[in-house]
Amino acid sequence: MTTEQLHAEILRKKSFLCIGLDVDLDKIPQHLLDTEDPIFEFNKAIIDATHDLAVAYKPNTAFYEAYGLKGWHALEKTINYLNQRHPEIFTIADAKRGDIGNTSAMYAKAFLEDLAFDSVTVAPYMGRDSVEPFLAVKNKFTILLALTSNGGAYDFQTQKTDEGELYKTVLKTSRTWQNSGNLMYVIGATKAEYFSEVRRIVPDSFLLVPGVGAQGGSLKEVCRYGMNDIIGLLVNSSRGIIYAGNGEDFAEMARAEAYTMQQEMCEIIIDSQLSKALDIR
Amino acid sequence: MTTEQLHAEILRKKSFLCIGLDVDLDKIPQHLLDTEDPIFEFNKAIIDATHDLAVAYKPNTAFYEAYGLKGWHALEKTINYLNQRHPEIFTIADAKRGDIGNTSAMYAKAFLEDLAFDSVTVAPYMGRDSVEPFLAVKNKFTILLALTSNGGAYDFQTQKTDEGELYKTVLKTSRTWQNSGNLMYVIGATKAEYFSEVRRIVPDSFLLVPGVGAQGGSLKEVCRYGMNDIIGLLVNSSRGIIYAGNGEDFAEMARAEAYTMQQEMCEIIIDSQLSKALDIR
Repeated sequence: MTTEQLHAEILRKKSFLCIGLDVDLDKIPQHLLDTEDPIFEFNKAIIDATHDLAVAYKPNTAFYEAYGLKGWHALEKTINYLNQRHPEIFTIADAKRGDIGNTSAMYAKAFLEDLAFDSVTVAPYMGRDSVEPFLAVKNKFTILLALTSNGGAYDFQTQKTDEGELYKTVLKTSRTWQNSGNLMYVIGATKAEYFSEVRRIVPDSFLLVPGVGAQGGSLKEVCRYGMNDIIGLLVNSSRGIIYAGNGEDFAEMARAEAYTMQQEMCEIIIDSQLSKALDIR
Repeated sequence: MTTEQLHAEILRKKSFLCIGLDVDLDKIPQHLLDTEDPIFEFNKAIIDATHDLAVAYKPNTAFYEAYGLKGWHALEKTINYLNQRHPEIFTIADAKRGDIGNTSAMYAKAFLEDLAFDSVTVAPYMGRDSVEPFLAVKNKFTILLALTSNGGAYDFQTQKTDEGELYKTVLKTSRTWQNSGNLMYVIGATKAEYFSEVRRIVPDSFLLVPGVGAQGGSLKEVCRYGMNDIIGLLVNSSRGIIYAGNGEDFAEMARAEAYTMQQEMCEIIIDSQLSKALDIR
């Protein structure tokens, strides 16, 4: 998928919603546990109920690895289902990988080629040669952790460096890497005041934004400082949507939550298009 | 496993060798490709041929994920084989994971409980709450990336910070976390001159040291600056040992390489014990 295609899909759906498929067997509706593959059945129901409202899905690999072979199989089935039924939807393997060059190449093969995700999240700590093997895959995106939404983000990411703070160094440095056009960045919504700083360094990149809702970030604030000409945001919600209900009607409940978020996004997109049109006049 | 048990095993085998099980189907002997599970057969042969010379084995998960379900299954079989046949051997899931709290807990479950590795490597970028869920598992170790052996290590890890350089901030800060006694650190052998700095901050911790051999690090230099009272080093070699040969005799060739390294380590251990004995007199 290209950035242009993603942008077009955002405008068509009036949504920049990403749904996190973080399936925990302790939290999904009990009646699914009797099926052969509860994880996949859960995902399928969520996708069927929300695919017209979301532009991206993001399974976090931890939740699949925690169930061993069965989990890994459910992950394969989920990405295959998405790629077959909804090829226009942007898929993110939230894997936060990163290793020395030849090893990162193995991860890139696993997630971007074999599983055929559109993108994968990568941790920056090991630097250029740990990220470039991901960037080398054509028409795929590498979503680099920059400023995350958790409390621990302040331990190292905001450490003072020559560029101001470490996450800024990460943003600036990564722009010099081979195929840096394939980069997107994780910027947590809990730190809305940082978005204008981020946009100064990476005006054109898409940002994957966790932390709206459950973790306390405000959608309006994020959009105010983070949106660019091509929207440039994928706002993720996981628990808030997928665990909205846990009875037989869990998928409808999830849809209702997704719909509320999409409506809010729709309004923001229309407002931004209006003000752009007015600017042009 | 406890640090004391690991230390005892090092003294018994006169070795602090860790063998990296990074299995690439393009590099293993052709005749194994006809077996049902070439990855596991390769690992089993390497383990059978070297288990008296090595105190630790370290499969890098990238090489298993790259083969999808089959790869994950081979990883399960490998760790089960190690835990059943050689429970005295220290096992490392080289996974370089790290995510927000509840997600890291899933990874900790996957690697330390279900797969029952003795330890897992973790990336520090997301800070305290991304690492503490791993540290919470009793009698298991979390091996935090501090200063890695690749070129990209200089992109961020050596960035100037208040503590001097980022990797030092990582070392110091991590010592304040809950259950920090369960921490070990990755320090690349290619940066031997940094080991005395590292020892000033973490005198008692075990260090996992990649980069000896193939990547150019010197064992003697690493030991000179990095060894402590309980040896405190696990020196890893992957390709140099496991791909020493690729004919029918690949396992013997691997053993020969492992033996050369173990002999060098034996000499270093005996020297250090001698000088300790002389100090006491």
